[in-house]
Amino acid sequence: MPELRKDPVLGRWVIISTERAKRPKDFKSAPEKKVVSPKACPFCPDNEGATPPEIMAYRDPSTQPNTRGWTLRVIPNKFPALLIEGEINRRGEGIYDRMNGIGAHEVIIETNEHEKDLSDLEIEHFRNVIYAYQERTLDLKKDQRLRYVMIFKNFGAAAGASLEHNHSQLIATPIIPKRVIEEMDGARRYFDYRERCIFCDIVVQETKDRKRLITENNSFISICPFAPRFPFEIWILPRRHASNFEEASREELDDLAAILKDCLIRLKKALNTPPYNYVIHTTPLTLKGIDFYHYHIEIIPVLTHIAGFEWGTGFYINPTGPEESAAYLKNIL
Amino acid sequence: MPELRKDPVLGRWVIISTERAKRPKDFKSAPEKKVVSPKACPFCPDNEGATPPEIMAYRDPSTQPNTRGWTLRVIPNKFPALLIEGEINRRGEGIYDRMNGIGAHEVIIETNEHEKDLSDLEIEHFRNVIYAYQERTLDLKKDQRLRYVMIFKNFGAAAGASLEHNHSQLIATPIIPKRVIEEMDGARRYFDYRERCIFCDIVVQETKDRKRLITENNSFISICPFAPRFPFEIWILPRRHASNFEEASREELDDLAAILKDCLIRLKKALNTPPYNYVIHTTPLTLKGIDFYHYHIEIIPVLTHIAGFEWGTGFYINPTGPEESAAYLKNIL
Repeated sequence: MPELRKDPVLGRWVIISTERAKRPKDFKSAPEKKVVSPKACPFCPDNEGATPPEIMAYRDPSTQPNTRGWTLRVIPNKFPALLIEGEINRRGEGIYDRMNGIGAHEVIIETNEHEKDLSDLEIEHFRNVIYAYQERTLDLKKDQRLRYVMIFKNFGAAAGASLEHNHSQLIATPIIPKRVIEEMDGARRYFDYRERCIFCDIVVQETKDRKRLITENNSFISICPFAPRFPFEIWILPRRHASNFEEASREELDDLAAILKDCLIRLKKALNTPPYNYVIHTTPLTLKGIDFYHYHIEIIPVLTHIAGFEWGTGFYINPTGPEESAAYLKNIL
Repeated sequence: MPELRKDPVLGRWVIISTERAKRPKDFKSAPEKKVVSPKACPFCPDNEGATPPEIMAYRDPSTQPNTRGWTLRVIPNKFPALLIEGEINRRGEGIYDRMNGIGAHEVIIETNEHEKDLSDLEIEHFRNVIYAYQERTLDLKKDQRLRYVMIFKNFGAAAGASLEHNHSQLIATPIIPKRVIEEMDGARRYFDYRERCIFCDIVVQETKDRKRLITENNSFISICPFAPRFPFEIWILPRRHASNFEEASREELDDLAAILKDCLIRLKKALNTPPYNYVIHTTPLTLKGIDFYHYHIEIIPVLTHIAGFEWGTGFYINPTGPEESAAYLKNIL
């Protein structure tokens, strides 16, 4: 059973993941990337038996679950960081706190084509990826033990992807993550003072200034944020105030698919297919219609290394200003 | 002039470092490690002219500054993240905040031997590294504009080291970093409730339990912390309550050198010379004799990649429990 442990100083939780237990020798000569042929890839068609049974799939209605005939497939992670079965069982150990690692850890296999990059998918297919994110979130929201659903994608070994076949992941946690609490608190403080949502204000200012704006469509804008941690960091923000990703309309999801695909194509062209992470930032499952918070996506290309200064201070040294990154990304196509 | 910018939601500051400005092409095919010969290395003897003039050095008293004859040398960083000259000049831009990047950025060249690893230094020499850390902190403390001194080491390209000749760095900032505030706040909350320092309690519990203890000497213990972010993460804590690193006695510094060297040797043996970061966590320069906070060193071997989940939640998935890491490191020698 994986275990959640709390740092007694910072209140930061970590998952000690026994399902993925590693001993020293596992780190000594870890290959940077496991390249596998489609034949051996557990995410490829005809290998459905190599993964746990699917939770959902977009598939030809004449086909059976866990056989070929799908275009997108959601499965439980075979080596889950958190397990769906069991009790949370919070307990102490002297000054320390721990609980069982209960939650959900799912993999969204975005396409049946081993070599295909997410940004290469046809827009109709790309929309399905976004629909699947929403569908899974709405389903997990019914589980009373869960407080937060985090959807993210790791692309490339340096961004933490352990398999090259494109996929996203979803982790649902029984606690609200520290980073989410910090974001909510920051946004709430701004709202208390101004009676406006900080993200709405960002949308207004960036749409007016345009110097950090990359692209826009009916429902979304993409920007390089004012204080980015990394070169070419991108945020995608809904124009309309909306706190919960899972309540977005079908029309908004289509616009989100379009702008996310566009941003990924720009990153790929600008930086020669860099490794990247993206994360959907949204409110905890227990909150609804929050005035002060606004869901959004943050995309981080992995171009620099996190070093001692960042670890110690929590602030970042970024060698490329967002105005320069935005100008470059805007004109790349 | 580098610029400090504040994320309006999280309150996280970033340094937009114009001195190190990078354009997209700089990221496209960055080599993982620049291996240079001692002849071309700016940190090697006889190349003193390739660096800015030294701030201090431990050298043969018969030799001149900025010539050979030194065993340890402190210089300003040639590409500083922050500049020592100028005014802070806080200002707004609509909803955003920024200020000039004022501060200090120094490099501690730990040895004149290009190939020598820090952990290979004789203990007398290793002590000098720790003395230099303290000496520089005490000197910068006199500058009224500075609030915090962060001392850290990046070893190996994957840990952010851009030159292979061993060195540590020091960055002094005009604001107290977010991460430091969080640590101080967390420790203060514990003290308010228990009237004891959380770090003192950690020392007591770990010394009694011993299952996460690696080594100890008269003044320090080294442990794998209860809720580590990473496999083989190590913390070094003073036994005696002490909030400020720069006030440590010479005897304590000698014990710190001994235990740090020992931990680095263990990491090297256990993990085949892994890249790592270490950071000295201490109180802001403006505080003195704080009851609730305890300076310490955190060592992070770079074995895994930070991925989307960590970026989104601020919590970490660690495949190796600290009890296992500690048992391994304890018995490695």
